[in-house]
Amino acid sequence: MPKYVYLFKEGDASMRNLLGGKGANLAEMTNIGMPVPQGFTVTTEACTRYYADGKTIAPEIEEEIYQALAATEKEYGKKFGDLENPFLVSVRSGSRASMPGMMDTILNLGLNDVAVEGMARLTNNERFAYDSYRRFIQMFSDVVMEVDKGLFHNALEDVKREKGTTQDTDLDAQDLKEVVRRYKEIYRNAKGEEFPQDPKMQLMEAIKAVFRSWDNPRAIYYRRMNDIPGDWGTAVNVQGMVFGNMGDDCGTGVAFTRNPSTGENKLYGEYLMNAQGEDVVAGIRTPHPMADMETDMPELYKQFMEYANTLEKHYRDMQDMEFTIERGKLYMLQTRNGKRTAAAAVKIAVDLVGEGMLSEEEAVLKVEPKQLETLLHPNFDTAELKKATSFATGLPASPGAGAGGLYFTAHEAAAAGKQGKDVILVREETTPEDIEGMDYAKAILTARGGMTSHAAVVARGMGRPAVVGCGALHIDEVKKTLTVNGQVFHEGDPVSVDGTTGHVYSGLIPTVEASVSGDFGRLMAWADAARTLKVRTNADTPRDTAQAVEFGAEGIGLCRTEHMFFEADRVKAMREMILSDSAEQRRAALAKILPFQQKDFEEMYKALEGRPMTVRYLDPPLHEFLPQKSMVNEIAEIASELGTTSEKIVQKIDELHEFNPMMGHRGCRLSVTYPEIAEMQTRAVLQAALKVRKETGMAVVPEIMIPLVGSKKELKYVKDIVMETAEKIFAEQGEKIDFLVGTMIEIPRACVTADEIAEEAEFFSFGTNDLTQMGFGFSRDDAGKFLDSYYTSKILESDPFARLDVDGIGKLVETAVTLGKKGRPNIKLGICGEHGGDPSTIEFCHKVGLNYVSCSPYRVPIARLAAAHAAIKEKQAK
Amino acid sequence: MPKYVYLFKEGDASMRNLLGGKGANLAEMTNIGMPVPQGFTVTTEACTRYYADGKTIAPEIEEEIYQALAATEKEYGKKFGDLENPFLVSVRSGSRASMPGMMDTILNLGLNDVAVEGMARLTNNERFAYDSYRRFIQMFSDVVMEVDKGLFHNALEDVKREKGTTQDTDLDAQDLKEVVRRYKEIYRNAKGEEFPQDPKMQLMEAIKAVFRSWDNPRAIYYRRMNDIPGDWGTAVNVQGMVFGNMGDDCGTGVAFTRNPSTGENKLYGEYLMNAQGEDVVAGIRTPHPMADMETDMPELYKQFMEYANTLEKHYRDMQDMEFTIERGKLYMLQTRNGKRTAAAAVKIAVDLVGEGMLSEEEAVLKVEPKQLETLLHPNFDTAELKKATSFATGLPASPGAGAGGLYFTAHEAAAAGKQGKDVILVREETTPEDIEGMDYAKAILTARGGMTSHAAVVARGMGRPAVVGCGALHIDEVKKTLTVNGQVFHEGDPVSVDGTTGHVYSGLIPTVEASVSGDFGRLMAWADAARTLKVRTNADTPRDTAQAVEFGAEGIGLCRTEHMFFEADRVKAMREMILSDSAEQRRAALAKILPFQQKDFEEMYKALEGRPMTVRYLDPPLHEFLPQKSMVNEIAEIASELGTTSEKIVQKIDELHEFNPMMGHRGCRLSVTYPEIAEMQTRAVLQAALKVRKETGMAVVPEIMIPLVGSKKELKYVKDIVMETAEKIFAEQGEKIDFLVGTMIEIPRACVTADEIAEEAEFFSFGTNDLTQMGFGFSRDDAGKFLDSYYTSKILESDPFARLDVDGIGKLVETAVTLGKKGRPNIKLGICGEHGGDPSTIEFCHKVGLNYVSCSPYRVPIARLAAAHAAIKEKQAK
Repeated sequence: MPKYVYLFKEGDASMRNLLGGKGANLAEMTNIGMPVPQGFTVTTEACTRYYADGKTIAPEIEEEIYQALAATEKEYGKKFGDLENPFLVSVRSGSRASMPGMMDTILNLGLNDVAVEGMARLTNNERFAYDSYRRFIQMFSDVVMEVDKGLFHNALEDVKREKGTTQDTDLDAQDLKEVVRRYKEIYRNAKGEEFPQDPKMQLMEAIKAVFRSWDNPRAIYYRRMNDIPGDWGTAVNVQGMVFGNMGDDCGTGVAFTRNPSTGENKLYGEYLMNAQGEDVVAGIRTPHPMADMETDMPELYKQFMEYANTLEKHYRDMQDMEFTIERGKLYMLQTRNGKRTAAAAVKIAVDLVGEGMLSEEEAVLKVEPKQLETLLHPNFDTAELKKATSFATGLPASPGAGAGGLYFTAHEAAAAGKQGKDVILVREETTPEDIEGMDYAKAILTARGGMTSHAAVVARGMGRPAVVGCGALHIDEVKKTLTVNGQVFHEGDPVSVDGTTGHVYSGLIPTVEASVSGDFGRLMAWADAARTLKVRTNADTPRDTAQAVEFGAEGIGLCRTEHMFFEADRVKAMREMILSDSAEQRRAALAKILPFQQKDFEEMYKALEGRPMTVRYLDPPLHEFLPQKSMVNEIAEIASELGTTSEKIVQKIDELHEFNPMMGHRGCRLSVTYPEIAEMQTRAVLQAALKVRKETGMAVVPEIMIPLVGSKKELKYVKDIVMETAEKIFAEQGEKIDFLVGTMIEIPRACVTADEIAEEAEFFSFGTNDLTQMGFGFSRDDAGKFLDSYYTSKILESDPFARLDVDGIGKLVETAVTLGKKGRPNIKLGICGEHGGDPSTIEFCHKVGLNYVSCSPYRVPIARLAAAHAAIKEKQAK
Repeated sequence: MPKYVYLFKEGDASMRNLLGGKGANLAEMTNIGMPVPQGFTVTTEACTRYYADGKTIAPEIEEEIYQALAATEKEYGKKFGDLENPFLVSVRSGSRASMPGMMDTILNLGLNDVAVEGMARLTNNERFAYDSYRRFIQMFSDVVMEVDKGLFHNALEDVKREKGTTQDTDLDAQDLKEVVRRYKEIYRNAKGEEFPQDPKMQLMEAIKAVFRSWDNPRAIYYRRMNDIPGDWGTAVNVQGMVFGNMGDDCGTGVAFTRNPSTGENKLYGEYLMNAQGEDVVAGIRTPHPMADMETDMPELYKQFMEYANTLEKHYRDMQDMEFTIERGKLYMLQTRNGKRTAAAAVKIAVDLVGEGMLSEEEAVLKVEPKQLETLLHPNFDTAELKKATSFATGLPASPGAGAGGLYFTAHEAAAAGKQGKDVILVREETTPEDIEGMDYAKAILTARGGMTSHAAVVARGMGRPAVVGCGALHIDEVKKTLTVNGQVFHEGDPVSVDGTTGHVYSGLIPTVEASVSGDFGRLMAWADAARTLKVRTNADTPRDTAQAVEFGAEGIGLCRTEHMFFEADRVKAMREMILSDSAEQRRAALAKILPFQQKDFEEMYKALEGRPMTVRYLDPPLHEFLPQKSMVNEIAEIASELGTTSEKIVQKIDELHEFNPMMGHRGCRLSVTYPEIAEMQTRAVLQAALKVRKETGMAVVPEIMIPLVGSKKELKYVKDIVMETAEKIFAEQGEKIDFLVGTMIEIPRACVTADEIAEEAEFFSFGTNDLTQMGFGFSRDDAGKFLDSYYTSKILESDPFARLDVDGIGKLVETAVTLGKKGRPNIKLGICGEHGGDPSTIEFCHKVGLNYVSCSPYRVPIARLAAAHAAIKEKQAK
């Protein structure tokens, strides 16, 4: 039988999967002699078992919990529910991956009508005891028993009104006893029974509540966003309470061994005297910087610094620590590798190598690829910024710049964001419920809270710019107004938020590219040395190409040629082609596009400076080049431009209408019906290549990619057109150039017949967007309507369009890889779907043996780093 | 090196794949001593080689042909192009499968300016010689050299006009010499060189033309319709000419050893004196029945009957023979297993068992499953037929009844048929070019031709009703009128054609079910004994169910429940549900549908009499239950019916709009978002089952099928709803019933994760329609627009929605079968897509080890027979 409960002194840091991050670190701190309030951890396996057993805790696990409790009580010399020396505990979640704020916590557990008296006596502070008790009743009722917390709020307000005050602090012990009485009544009315007086029963219910909170909607959303599997489960840490709020020789704080925003090697944090830990994090009172502690309590500060240094060296990483001072004694409540901004992550990783704490490869692993996104994101244009006047300033909690329309609730922000609007979320302070709205926001702005408030921590984690604690803001959530010094903003009004400086501006300030530091270059060089996957980019313009090359792209993996047909000067000819009645007319129309398209390719070849370019032939259905039927004026305009009638155009729109255009007449199917399109594109690709090579002497490496292929014959049909056209061009010009012809693998049938297709294809590039669409039968444009139900019912854990579904679509990819290599052993394999920039997908690509991934220019560094992670982890696993 | 050319005497019947059907039979007839004009066969491998070599005949094959030619000349004692004794040959195609009329034939090859003189001398008939020569020039120029045949027609008309006649027969030898002169001039003008005088060059070009004709559009269409692979190629038979048109002691005919329409064991056929073979088939002159020959030429008749009997016994099948009488001597030109109607096929097969010629299993193989379709198709309602007056009568060439609108060209008939119209094709006479129009026609009607004319042969093969040689018809193809005794019909006018009696009626006569004969029952019993695959039916109504049971269905493999929501009395409640804002409202609306749906299931269980029924849960997207946005009046009506506003309905229509509904919110995705749908359907299925079992004591076997599943978790989610609801029902009723829960496999992702899905699914039913859609990425509703290009470019050989694409989609099915058995070794496997009634797909299903196929009621006998074929062929192959 597995062991489901571990005393802190029984565990260590290596047991993270079983004990969760928090539990493993409490055990490790205990082992290295830190002053940790003792307790025990109920394992993640107990959580999994809880769900498997139909949301019940098996008797043998209950028994183990009671044994651990008894051992802990003995250590403290205290007893649950004791009048003399009552034992109180905190009950906290702690999963394998850090999920700050996502799950539930219960403090002061163990209080009941007897223990509260014991506590009053022991602390000689009746008010403190009853304040703790009423807080516990409210928290337990809300979190564990699901009693509406508004009822408690109202009862407290009633008592304050009766007393004639608005401040909690004006209530004395007697008032708080009355509050406790009313709270217990509320509980009795809601649950039909007395508030539980048995601390063991309290404990068991609290543990269950933490297990349950693993599956609350915000936790599910967080996991999906952070690729955390739903079957990991959470551990539960039961820890003896120490009190930072027993008087002025008590306090609590949070500190980082280095600056989590910049990476600077200097202690960074905040503390509050006479407060509980939640007060610091919740941002209700504004805390002191840690520097004040050095002046005010030099001994304690020195002691804390020793612990901090020990922990950082022990974990070989920047630590995020919680501590409490109870009557002058320092306790370490928690440590973990600290969340940090991308810039900080890079600096810390590079510094730790310099300090001899990490190897280069270990340093590479210290930076999460996804994080880089912030580093690479634009900041406000300095010139424009100089012209702007800030109307408010807060704490610069998460760096970067964001501009958009104001929204006052997370829900509305998310809704607007889903419609593609740029959104700024403004809140009094944020709560874990706001997470989806924060995710959709370009920047986050709050009126309250400090640098370690919820908004600040989450925004940094997400890479969203944030300004917090901006006290000048007066927010009316109901009227949807933001008033600052008499200036009133309404929902949707444009504002710009600079998370690097803390300034907030009205209007939309243009942004410019980020410049990356020397540390970044050093880290990326280590990453490049470690990785085996090549990284290309998806780019359709010379500008994007140049940007991607600067970011380290090793070629273009996907040049979509659609835009080359859509631009104003070409779409007319394209429409002529579509309205043609014969191949000759079509050819004549396409001939007008050829010079433009050839010019585009010439510029891109030049920007690539000898790197290869994969050109995908025309893919979208032709109806996309015509207006919608209801756009009568546009149709009339086009008709007059092309010298035809609106009727003829409408007739063609009708002809081109499809019920399921995604599975319709597009991709290589266009070239099967209109071979002249492939002819023209082949001319553009190869004539441009010959010309650039001649003009510049550069190597030019064209790779022609036929999209949406489902069978070998289909590919061969289009390839034959390409090869015949190429022969003609080479004969005309008296000169040849090497090029490849390959295909997108994006149709399930192509995966299962990839051996045959590889006989014709010199490379495969996985188009995992379409493969996901066809493989799941999920229309990307429509699936949004039901995917939310799929997340809440836990059928899906992540958006398969953002993160490759390795278990299903991944099998199709693997099949195609295996068969493709069978058909052509030296076949070149890549991926060019949106997934190409997703780190977990990149890890999969590395494992199945692709040669390269291709992603948008801004994701190139992310992909380089992710590819390095995959290679290093593989090496470490060996 | 393979041998590419075989003299007739070198081959035999077993060499069909190499020599083609015609070549193998000519060889076989030679071997058993029939009077066959000798010659040689160029193999199908030579054809394949021709295409592989870029449409050229390799020198070594050319050499073999010349050697065979020399051997044949020696046998005849004649020489190509000889003035004394010129050797003439026919050049005919002949592939492995019979493709009548699809490919090209050239007669009288070898004629040139010298040989024509030799022939005139030899036959003492200069007119005959020059008539043959001008026919040969025209045929060779048209078929081999692609000179416009209209030019020759005009030249002939010119000569007749100059002579002052309209009849070919009025032209004498001098006139025909002039025609030859002008023909050669036409050739010279068109090709820039003289008409080829070298018979060897003529021969080589003719052989190439036959090879080319393997890939003409009508041959491709025919192959697609008949599942003949494109890589088989055709053989070419070069045979010494004998002449049925040398005088009145000459003739030619076509005969069947039994009646190909009824199967009656009596010689059946037609002949013409002083005619060439093509004259009989083309239907230009009306021939004599074979019975006349017994009277007119008793000796020859007796001899012919001997040959016919020998051939039938030799081939153990009804024979279709061509013969020619040259100057009183009988030659057998060809024999083959005769095409026959389904009724004839059944009767002949059963008779041959009775006559001891075939075993029962051999007899089963003699009837093509697809053919049965005609047998099972409706005939006109006798009562209605009595009231109708026929306006014309022709030869009853192909049995069955068809009614629809008149169309005058194959092209227009096909176009109208593609639009879903019922179409009757009326033609002066049909030609091979008409094949697609004939395929789309409900019946075919011609003014000319006999029982073995093109229209008659092809219609019988297709199972289309046809009336031919209906002389009263006056057709004006340009004006699009059909005039019969002053009565005028226009395009689209309704007519009814009875192919069993030869009568044609105006208006649409209702049809009734076919009744099947005792022979049919006997044959099907042999088939049932041989097969291992079970055959179920797709049925949604008690009537269809009863029909299917009568046709031998062993259960329902697919009961679509859509109709149970669409019917007028239910759709209102369905719309209420769709417009609901909460699960409670939805549940209330669904509760109104429950009694109807339960009643439907009760009736179907009763009709099934203990056989199992697979019920598929609601599948279509919800927008299908609302009118289109443009249907303003309907929307207003529904709004007032439901007590809501048009705006609300329009808003919902907008909400439900999808870009790709086929990959949208449908199938099990509906039950994930609205679990109450699955709850209601589970109640309907199980409450009906309990009730019918109680009332009738019958066994009731419900199988609940969750559609469009892509992952195990998705199935489990819906299955959990089903199981919980079932538990509730069983508790309410105090009674249980066994049932299965399984899934459609129709999503590619489901195929590759079938091992996991099988852990939850008790059965798989392959939904190959959707699997083909998603697997190919072909929208069934849209693919028609480009599939034609796919057929003509030979990327696809058959419609993947009609015949399962075994090479691609079949791989997905095989993967799912293998993985499914891994996940649940005793899993039940079936198919319920449209393919379930397609014989070649059924053969595949047998091979991969499915337990059953399910198809529409009328296809049940076809499926039973096809399943027997698959089993017998497998046994024979062992």
